[in-house]
Amino acid sequence: MTALTTSDLTEIYTDLHRHPELAYAEHRTAGIVAERLRGWGFDVHEGVGGTGVVGVLGNGEGPRVLLRADMDGLPVTEATGLPYASTDTATTPDGVESGTMHACGHDVHVTCLLGAASRLAAAPETWSGTLIALFQPAEEVGSGARTMLADGLYDRIGGAPDVVLGQHVMPLPVGVVNLTAGPAMAAADSLRVTLHGRGGHGSSPEATVDPVVMAAATVMRLQGVVAREVGANEGAVVTVGALRSGTQANIIPASAELLVNVRTFDASVRERVLGAIRRIVEAESAASGAPAAPEIESIASFSAMANDPEASERTRAVLARVLEEQRGTIESAGGVPAVISLPPAAGSEDVGELATAVGVPLVYWNLGGWDPQAFAGFDLAHASGMGDLPAGVAPNHSPFFAPVPEPTLELGAELLVEAAVDRLR
Amino acid sequence: MTALTTSDLTEIYTDLHRHPELAYAEHRTAGIVAERLRGWGFDVHEGVGGTGVVGVLGNGEGPRVLLRADMDGLPVTEATGLPYASTDTATTPDGVESGTMHACGHDVHVTCLLGAASRLAAAPETWSGTLIALFQPAEEVGSGARTMLADGLYDRIGGAPDVVLGQHVMPLPVGVVNLTAGPAMAAADSLRVTLHGRGGHGSSPEATVDPVVMAAATVMRLQGVVAREVGANEGAVVTVGALRSGTQANIIPASAELLVNVRTFDASVRERVLGAIRRIVEAESAASGAPAAPEIESIASFSAMANDPEASERTRAVLARVLEEQRGTIESAGGVPAVISLPPAAGSEDVGELATAVGVPLVYWNLGGWDPQAFAGFDLAHASGMGDLPAGVAPNHSPFFAPVPEPTLELGAELLVEAAVDRLR
Amino acid sequence: MTALTTSDLTEIYTDLHRHPELAYAEHRTAGIVAERLRGWGFDVHEGVGGTGVVGVLGNGEGPRVLLRADMDGLPVTEATGLPYASTDTATTPDGVESGTMHACGHDVHVTCLLGAASRLAAAPETWSGTLIALFQPAEEVGSGARTMLADGLYDRIGGAPDVVLGQHVMPLPVGVVNLTAGPAMAAADSLRVTLHGRGGHGSSPEATVDPVVMAAATVMRLQGVVAREVGANEGAVVTVGALRSGTQANIIPASAELLVNVRTFDASVRERVLGAIRRIVEAESAASGAPAAPEIESIASFSAMANDPEASERTRAVLARVLEEQRGTIESAGGVPAVISLPPAAGSEDVGELATAVGVPLVYWNLGGWDPQAFAGFDLAHASGMGDLPAGVAPNHSPFFAPVPEPTLELGAELLVEAAVDRLR
Amino acid sequence: MTALTTSDLTEIYTDLHRHPELAYAEHRTAGIVAERLRGWGFDVHEGVGGTGVVGVLGNGEGPRVLLRADMDGLPVTEATGLPYASTDTATTPDGVESGTMHACGHDVHVTCLLGAASRLAAAPETWSGTLIALFQPAEEVGSGARTMLADGLYDRIGGAPDVVLGQHVMPLPVGVVNLTAGPAMAAADSLRVTLHGRGGHGSSPEATVDPVVMAAATVMRLQGVVAREVGANEGAVVTVGALRSGTQANIIPASAELLVNVRTFDASVRERVLGAIRRIVEAESAASGAPAAPEIESIASFSAMANDPEASERTRAVLARVLEEQRGTIESAGGVPAVISLPPAAGSEDVGELATAVGVPLVYWNLGGWDPQAFAGFDLAHASGMGDLPAGVAPNHSPFFAPVPEPTLELGAELLVEAAVDRLR
Repeated sequence: MTALTTSDLTEIYTDLHRHPELAYAEHRTAGIVAERLRGWGFDVHEGVGGTGVVGVLGNGEGPRVLLRADMDGLPVTEATGLPYASTDTATTPDGVESGTMHACGHDVHVTCLLGAASRLAAAPETWSGTLIALFQPAEEVGSGARTMLADGLYDRIGGAPDVVLGQHVMPLPVGVVNLTAGPAMAAADSLRVTLHGRGGHGSSPEATVDPVVMAAATVMRLQGVVAREVGANEGAVVTVGALRSGTQANIIPASAELLVNVRTFDASVRERVLGAIRRIVEAESAASGAPAAPEIESIASFSAMANDPEASERTRAVLARVLEEQRGTIESAGGVPAVISLPPAAGSEDVGELATAVGVPLVYWNLGGWDPQAFAGFDLAHASGMGDLPAGVAPNHSPFFAPVPEPTLELGAELLVEAAVDRLR
Repeated sequence: MTALTTSDLTEIYTDLHRHPELAYAEHRTAGIVAERLRGWGFDVHEGVGGTGVVGVLGNGEGPRVLLRADMDGLPVTEATGLPYASTDTATTPDGVESGTMHACGHDVHVTCLLGAASRLAAAPETWSGTLIALFQPAEEVGSGARTMLADGLYDRIGGAPDVVLGQHVMPLPVGVVNLTAGPAMAAADSLRVTLHGRGGHGSSPEATVDPVVMAAATVMRLQGVVAREVGANEGAVVTVGALRSGTQANIIPASAELLVNVRTFDASVRERVLGAIRRIVEAESAASGAPAAPEIESIASFSAMANDPEASERTRAVLARVLEEQRGTIESAGGVPAVISLPPAAGSEDVGELATAVGVPLVYWNLGGWDPQAFAGFDLAHASGMGDLPAGVAPNHSPFFAPVPEPTLELGAELLVEAAVDRLR
Repeated sequence: MTALTTSDLTEIYTDLHRHPELAYAEHRTAGIVAERLRGWGFDVHEGVGGTGVVGVLGNGEGPRVLLRADMDGLPVTEATGLPYASTDTATTPDGVESGTMHACGHDVHVTCLLGAASRLAAAPETWSGTLIALFQPAEEVGSGARTMLADGLYDRIGGAPDVVLGQHVMPLPVGVVNLTAGPAMAAADSLRVTLHGRGGHGSSPEATVDPVVMAAATVMRLQGVVAREVGANEGAVVTVGALRSGTQANIIPASAELLVNVRTFDASVRERVLGAIRRIVEAESAASGAPAAPEIESIASFSAMANDPEASERTRAVLARVLEEQRGTIESAGGVPAVISLPPAAGSEDVGELATAVGVPLVYWNLGGWDPQAFAGFDLAHASGMGDLPAGVAPNHSPFFAPVPEPTLELGAELLVEAAVDRLR
Repeated sequence: MTALTTSDLTEIYTDLHRHPELAYAEHRTAGIVAERLRGWGFDVHEGVGGTGVVGVLGNGEGPRVLLRADMDGLPVTEATGLPYASTDTATTPDGVESGTMHACGHDVHVTCLLGAASRLAAAPETWSGTLIALFQPAEEVGSGARTMLADGLYDRIGGAPDVVLGQHVMPLPVGVVNLTAGPAMAAADSLRVTLHGRGGHGSSPEATVDPVVMAAATVMRLQGVVAREVGANEGAVVTVGALRSGTQANIIPASAELLVNVRTFDASVRERVLGAIRRIVEAESAASGAPAAPEIESIASFSAMANDPEASERTRAVLARVLEEQRGTIESAGGVPAVISLPPAAGSEDVGELATAVGVPLVYWNLGGWDPQAFAGFDLAHASGMGDLPAGVAPNHSPFFAPVPEPTLELGAELLVEAAVDRLR
C-alpha cells in the first residue's frame, strides 16, 4: 500500500474541484472517497446521513480519533478562470438553476483528509488506536453533521471518538494556521421569507399589491436590525442573500422570496435579532396591504462553535512544530507566527456537533492556502475571518475563491497526520 | 367549406388556452392557424417575422382589410383552476423556468379571428375585396408587429392594407365594447437593469458590496419618479416587474437584475422618466460603492397607440348595431351602453405599427368578456383599462385572468366579420 | 374721492410684500385694508373669522357681486433679493421660527382688489347694485373661507352675493389669464403625523426605538402611494412638506413629526390615498416596534374647486376683451391667446366655499404676472398650474417667487373692475 | 470652614438639576461653583475655555491631582416627573427651541466634586500636595476639554497635574462602580449634513427637487453602513440624531439638515465609516438630481478614551475598599462585585484629553446611581454602557434619566476624596 504523493493530491483536488456537488448530492465525491478508503484497508460506511462516508481503521489499542472533512460545494458560478474551474450546473432546492463551485474549499478538505488517511494507513508503526476518517455531507446548509448523528453514526462505527479534529481552508498565507481556543464561530440561522402580494398588469399597479416594492422595503428595513437594534459590542450580521420576484418587466408578480442569513454570538442577541426580523417582515407586509400574511421558514440553523481550550493548546503545539519545520520550504512571510489566534469569526460550522453530541473535545483550525506575497504588508490581526482582505484575495463563497493547491494540500495533509498521531500515542 | 360554429370556437379556444407559447415561440399556435386558413382557401404566408402567419383571401375588386390577432402567451403560472387551465412551462429569455399562461387573452383573439376568417370565407357573396387575416407573434414584448414589417410583410402579401382592424379582450361585461377614438394606449418601455456588487460570504458583508441592498434601495428610490417627478395631470407608471439576485441565504451575490416597465402618454414625460430612472440607477450604484457601473438595456419599446377618429366613428356604429342586436341573447347589464369610450389606458399595444408604417387608419377596440353579473353596481367609467375592477374580476396578466368563452368568442368573431364587411362593401 | 393710481398700487404692494403675516395673524394687513375701504365710503366689517375684512358699498338697485382676495403669507424665507423683499419672521403653529414671505402672491390679490374697490367707488355712474370687497384670512391653511362663513359672514353683510369673483396670480406671462371652466383645482388635505419612538443616547441605539429611521422609512413608503396605488389616469399628489425630529447629533429623540399634504381630483381616490397613508404610518411604527401608536391629525382640508361653466363663459369674454385692448401696452407674447384654459390643477383653493355655501356661481381665474420674455418658446399648454416652468420662473411657494408689479397690478385691478361691472349692469 | 453634608449635596444637586445650561452657556452653574470654591479657600480661575472654572488648593509638598467634573446639560425636554425636574428651555446652536435637562448626570458630577473639594479643604491634615478641582464646560459637544487646554489651562494654574481622576454616573446599582482599564470609550464624530433640493408648491413636486425624500433615502441608506460595511467584530454606531426639513405641509422645502453621530473603536473603521457616510450622502443627492452638492461639516469630534492600566489598578483597589465599607449602608445587590469591568462602551468622553495633552495617566470610572432593586435578576455583564437595561431604568440622554440622589451623591463625593487622598500621600 502506498500513501498519496503530493502530485496525487493535486490530481484528486483538481478533479474534485471540477465537479462540485450541492449539499446531500455529493454522490460522485462520496464514491471516490469510499473507493480510496477501501483501497487503503479502511472499514467503510457509506450512506451515513444520506451521502456521508466514514472510514474506520483499527490499529491496536489506543484512543479513537475522528478526522473530519466536509464534501459539499455551492451554487456559485465559478469565475476564477482556473484551468480546472468548474463548469457544472445544478438545480438548487429553491428550483434555481445555477453554476456549482467549490467556493468554500471543501475540495481541499476532502483531499487533505484522503492524503492523511493514506499516509496513516501506510505507516501503522507510527500510531496505535482507531482512526476515523469522516467525510460529511451538507455542511453549507448546517445540517450534515446532525443528519449523520441522527442516522446512527456512532452506533454504526462502533462507538464515539475521544476527540474530533478538523480544518478549514481560509484566506491566510500558506504556512499560517489560525486556531481560536474557546468560542470560535458564530451561530447561523437561515430563513426563507415568502411575501404575498397580488399580481397583475405592469401598467395598472393600482389593481395589484406589488411584492417587489414590499420586498425592497423589507430589505431596507432589515438593515436597521444590526444598525439600530444590536449594540456596538454585541456583534451580529443579517444578510439577505437572495431576493427573487417576478419574471417579466410588464407583469407585477404575486409574491417575492427572500433568503435571509443571521449570525450571532450570544443567545439573547440571537433571539432579539430573529424577533426583529419577524416583526419587520410582518409589518412591511401590512404596510403594503398584503392580501395574505408572510411566511417565515427556518431552512438552516448552526450552533455556535467552540474549541476545547485544553485540547486546542495541545494541538496548537503540534501544528506550530510542523509549520515551523516547513517554513523554509513554503516561503511564508517571515514575520508572521505560524499559529495565530483571531477573534471569534462570524462564519459558522457544524463540525462542533460531532463533538458536543458525545461530550468530547473539538479542535478545529483554519488552514492558510494563499500565496504569502498576496499578504505582504497586510495586518493579519485584521483578517477577521473572511472580512478585510488584501486586494486580489477573494473570500470564501466568492466566485473568485482560489486557494493555491501547492503546498496547501501537502501541508493540510501533514497537519492532520501529525495532529492525529499526537493523540494516537 | 363550412364556417366554424360556436362550439368549434370553444374547442379551439380551450386547446389554445392549454398550450400557451411565449413570444416568438408560437410554433404550435402558428401551425394550427396556418392549417385552418389553408383549409378555407386562404393564401397562407408562414414564418413572417419568425412565427407570424398571414392568410390572404382575394374576392374580387375592393379594398384590402387587415384583421389582426396576436398569438403569444405569458410566463405566468395559471391559478384559475379552470378545467382547461395551462400546466405548460417554458424558459424565459432571462433563463427563468416558469409556468406559461394565456393571461392576456391572446387565445381569445386568435380564436375570434379564425372564426371570422372561416365565416367570411364561407360567405363570399357578402363582401368584395381582399381579406387579410394576420396572426402576429410577440405582442407582449412589443416587437412582433415591427418584426413582421421588417421581414417584408406587405411586400410578401402583395401590398399594404387600406385599414387595420382588431380587438383585445378585457375585463368588461360581455356585450360591452370600449372604443377610444384618438390616443388610446400608452407608450411602453421595458428595461433590463444589471447592478454590479461584489460577492462574498454572508457572514462578512464588510468584504463585499451587497447587490441585494443596492437593488432594494434602487426600487425604493424609483417609486419617487412617479411620486415626485411626474405631475398629477401627466400620468406615468414605473413598474419593477422582476428583481432577481442571489441563490442562497449565506452567500452575498455579485449582481442583481431588475426588469423595469415604463408607461407614458407624452413624449416629454417619457424622456423625463427614462432620464430619472437612469439617474437613480447610477446614483444608487454609487451609493453602494459599486465596483462597476450598472447596465441599462432596452428590451422592449411600444409606441403610444391612437385610433383614427373618423374610422373609429364609422366602426363604432357597426359594433353598436351588432351588440344591440345581441343584447337579448347575451343578457348584458341593461343600463350600460353597448359601446363605451374610456379614457386613454396605461396598457400598450403594438398593433398600431401595422397601420402607421403605411399611413392607414387603425381601429382597435376592447371586447368585454366577463359575466355581466360580476359588474353589477360597478361604475364602468372607473374601469380604466385594467385598474379598478369589481371583486372577483382579475385583470390582464393576473394568474386568475379568466374571460368566459361563451358568448365572448361568438360575439368577438361576429364583430370582426361585421367590421370587415362594412369596409368590404 | 380719488381712485388708486398705478403708482399707488405699486406702493401698497411693496409695503404688503415687505410684511407678510401668517394665517389668522394678518392684523397689519387687515388694518390697512379696513382703513382704505373706509376712506372710500365702504361699510366695513372687521374681525370676520378672526382677521377677515369685508367692505360693502351699496349703489342702488342691482345684483350683489363679491370680489375676493386672500391676505395670508407663508413661513418661507424669501430669497428673491428684491429691494422690497421680506425680512420678517414669525413662529408657525408648530412652533418653528421661520422667515415669512408672500410666496403665493396674496399681496398681489389684496392690492388689485383695493385698486378695483377704489375705482368702482370713484365711478358710481358706471354700475348699479352692491359691491362686496372681501379680504379673507388663512387661505393657505384651507380654512379661512369656512371660518368667515361660520362667523356669520353673510348675515353680517346683509345677505349672500349673487356671484363670487376672484383671481390668483400665477407664473404666466403678463397679459395672459387662465380660466378653467368646471372642475379647476384639486381637493387638498393636510395631516400632522406624530411617530413615537423611545429616546436615548446616540451611542446605544439598541436601548431605543429610533424615530428618525421610523420617519425616514415612512417617507420612503409613502412614495409608493402615488407610484403604486393610484392609476396613471387618476392623478394624485402626496407631499411630505416637513419632517422634524431631534435636536442634537448624539441624542436619539423620542418622536418625529411629519406634515403631509394630499391632492386628489376624485372622492374615491381621496379615500383610497388617505387610507393608504394611515395604513403605511401604522405599519411603519409597527416595523420599528414603536412603544405607542402614531397619531394622525387633519390640520387642513380644502374641497375641490369648480368654476360655474355658464358664468365662466360670460366672464371669459369680458377678460378677453380687456386683455386684448391692453395687448399693445403690455407687450405680451404675440401668439398666445389672452385667455387660455389649462387642465385642472393640483393646486387648491378655498374660495369655492364662499360660493357653494350659498349655491351661487363662482368664477376664479389665474392672472399672469411674469415677463413674457421669460416664456419665449415655452409651450403654455404644459404650464399645468405650477409644474413645468421656463428656466428662471419660480413657482408659487418657492422662496424665489416674484411676479413683476407692473403692469400686473394695474391689469389685475382692471380685470376685477370690468368683471364686476359686467355683472353690475 | 465646614465640609458639605449629605443634605447640602442634595440641595445643591436639586438646584443644579432644575437649571441645566447648554454647552458653553453654563454661566449660572459656573458662578455657583466659583463662589463655593472661593468660600473654601481655593484659588479660583474663571472663564477658562469660556465658562470653565478651576479651583486650586495648595497644601504643602506633593503631587498635583486633578479631579474633573463636566457641567453642561442637554437640549432634552425632561419627562421624569420628578419634583425637581427642569422646566427650563434654551435655543440650540442650530436655532431650535428646546427644553433643557441634565439628562447625562453632569449635575451629579458637579455636586460630587463640590462635596469632595469641601471635604478635602476641611481636612488638610489628611493629605499633602496640590488639589485641582476642574469644572469643564461643553463635554456633550466634545470640545470643552480641548477649549480649556487651548485657553492656557495648565499655564494659568501653574502647571500640569500628575494624574487626572473623574467619574460619570451611569445606570448601575448604587454601590457598584465600573472601571475599564485600557481602551474604555469610543471615538465620536458628529456631522452636520445639509442637503439641497429645490423648493416649491406641495401640489407640484415635478417642479421641485424634494429634500424630504432625499433626506429619508439618505437615512435609510446610512443604516447600511453599520449593517453592511462594518464587520460583526469591529463595532460601530451611526446615529442620525436629528432630521429637520420644512415648515408646512403644502410647501416643499429647499433643503434638509441631518445631524449624524458616529462611534468607532478603531481608527481604520472610523475612516471607513466616515468615508461611507460621505459617499452615501453625495450619491443620494445625485439620485434626487440635487441642484447643488450636499455639505458635510464636522461639528464635534471626540478621541477614543483609555484609562491608564497601572493607575487604574491602583485606583480600583481604593474604590473597592470604599464601596465595600459602605455595602451595609447602601443595601446594594449582595452578589455583585463592588468594582466591575465592562467591555469598552460606545459612549464617548473628552476627559481623556486633559491627560493625554500632558502625557499623564487618566483614571475615569462609572458611578452606579440607581436603586439596586431595579437591577434584581439583571446580568450586569450585559449592561454594556447604556444599552441593554432593566425595565424602568432609562439610559443617559433619555428624557426619563433619573439617578437617585441618595446615597449616590454621598458615595460619589467619598470616592473622589479617597481616590485623591490615595495619590496625595
